[in-house]
Amino acid sequence: MGERVTMADVARAAGVSSATVSYVLSGKRAVAPATRTAVEAAVDRLGFTVNTTARSLRTGRSSLVALIVPDLANPFFAQLAAALEEGVRGLGLHVVVCNTRARREEERALLAEAVQQHFAGVVITPFRLLPSDLRPVVEAGVPVVVSADVPFGPVDQISPDARVATRQALQCVTSGGRRRIAVIAGPRDATGGDPRLELLRALALQFGTSVPRELVVRGEHTREAGAAGFGELLGRRHPPDAVFCANDAIAVGAMDKARELGIEIPEEVALIGHDDASFASLVRPQLSTIRYPAAEVGRLAAQLLRERLDGREVFRTVKVKAEFIRRASA
Amino acid sequence: MGERVTMADVARAAGVSSATVSYVLSGKRAVAPATRTAVEAAVDRLGFTVNTTARSLRTGRSSLVALIVPDLANPFFAQLAAALEEGVRGLGLHVVVCNTRARREEERALLAEAVQQHFAGVVITPFRLLPSDLRPVVEAGVPVVVSADVPFGPVDQISPDARVATRQALQCVTSGGRRRIAVIAGPRDATGGDPRLELLRALALQFGTSVPRELVVRGEHTREAGAAGFGELLGRRHPPDAVFCANDAIAVGAMDKARELGIEIPEEVALIGHDDASFASLVRPQLSTIRYPAAEVGRLAAQLLRERLDGREVFRTVKVKAEFIRRASA
Repeated sequence: MGERVTMADVARAAGVSSATVSYVLSGKRAVAPATRTAVEAAVDRLGFTVNTTARSLRTGRSSLVALIVPDLANPFFAQLAAALEEGVRGLGLHVVVCNTRARREEERALLAEAVQQHFAGVVITPFRLLPSDLRPVVEAGVPVVVSADVPFGPVDQISPDARVATRQALQCVTSGGRRRIAVIAGPRDATGGDPRLELLRALALQFGTSVPRELVVRGEHTREAGAAGFGELLGRRHPPDAVFCANDAIAVGAMDKARELGIEIPEEVALIGHDDASFASLVRPQLSTIRYPAAEVGRLAAQLLRERLDGREVFRTVKVKAEFIRRASA
Repeated sequence: MGERVTMADVARAAGVSSATVSYVLSGKRAVAPATRTAVEAAVDRLGFTVNTTARSLRTGRSSLVALIVPDLANPFFAQLAAALEEGVRGLGLHVVVCNTRARREEERALLAEAVQQHFAGVVITPFRLLPSDLRPVVEAGVPVVVSADVPFGPVDQISPDARVATRQALQCVTSGGRRRIAVIAGPRDATGGDPRLELLRALALQFGTSVPRELVVRGEHTREAGAAGFGELLGRRHPPDAVFCANDAIAVGAMDKARELGIEIPEEVALIGHDDASFASLVRPQLSTIRYPAAEVGRLAAQLLRERLDGREVFRTVKVKAEFIRRASA
């Protein structure tokens, strides 16, 4: 395969400095479009690739960052991934996304892989993982960022602050006179129980209502589980007039079931999702939801990783504000 | 971290055979739910992890398969990924998904990473990659499966057979009397040009119509590009009455723009997507589309990888039939 092409070769061919080539490749600084095109053409012509092998040998780490998520089919995580990529590209790192299908066994196996393959970092949205499962990764010195509602102990973490948003959602629902509030929650064995449900319960009292036990159903964070849960709730002796869902996929499943049962959303039942995944504004009626900003989470995760790679030793927890997005379903 | 827990330890603790433990972990055979639960509990209690290190040392390969895609936010690829995972799990392999954002530079960099990290295999949906870019991967002995419309040379490949489906879509559109057929195609520098457009052009002649040059616009495979392309087409002196889109994201963008312009779909313009991504049936009107079965592609990719890991040396090309799904938009 001949001599290895260097950055200097590319710079010479494009008629720019090596620094400019580096800026184009790393995205670390803006470069004029014409210059960028010239550099990219030279990169292609010469078949240049960034010499990550050299860096790996130097640092003993691969240039891969694992993003470990419970459901790759949820576009929330694709958005998070895109922002994380954007944030680590300047470091010459690549993001690989790993799907655990919400299984603890997979979560643990993928963490073990990340350690074994000397990944540059791990960002994980745990679903059934226990905090103690992270210990081997931290001990191996792999920088980890956890995105979770509940504290995960000594580790960098991003958590939602959904108090205001949840209050606004309850305001929206109860001001319309709705009083039978139901929840389609995640499974009972999800990590940390269900802080979103607890928060909703606590705040509902402030609105003179409550979330009765018989109006809480549980399932995976999927469209199918949402349809099943909604069907179950509507079969109750006193069915709900508002349903909060643990994520948007569940809410879309609830819509499927409502259509099947001939129930009008929001006239008969108001529906509120969580996350604001890309499809929330595609469905009809458009979904009202508690937005947790995926891109912001991805950006922060990149920042926390970067700080740790730069040598920060204390752990940080960053709170991200959720926001109530009122559309047509509630 | 103490003695390594073995599969035999788990078997003893769960009161089953080591073979049964292996079946539960690999998913290779069905196991009674109670047995599965007992094994999983023992795995958790003992903190057992599959010893991939040992296997890696034995084979010189990691247990990771890279799925390299142009747009992680397109749920088509999430579906493909899920089926690929399902198909390689029995081999103890994990899938990591890598997003190239349709850039050749990223496609090449990620392939280089896969070689350098001794990945067990690569499945790639190229967007701007050239066939010659694959040579280093093949030469390094990393099994590769390419999912692409155009032939990629000496490599395992999965390609669509969209002849019948495209004919049915044209039949649907022209039988309603539509004659001004437009295409929102991919970018000019996409790998292999645009075989979908060529096929549509060739078949249109059989329906006594054609796709005139002024009714072909180009852009990325994104919602934004679809909106821009649709706006451009509707600004023509003789605007189209039917628009074929290179993928479903483009078609949803076209819908956005139609709403903005007050144009009724399908009354004024029929709209046809490509892929049948999960949101195609969520949007209103529901999107008619040429379905390319993502799960089938993922399943086949796993099979081709498996065969190659088992020692098959000749390259195989597998055709997958596309299918016209008529919904409300055409």
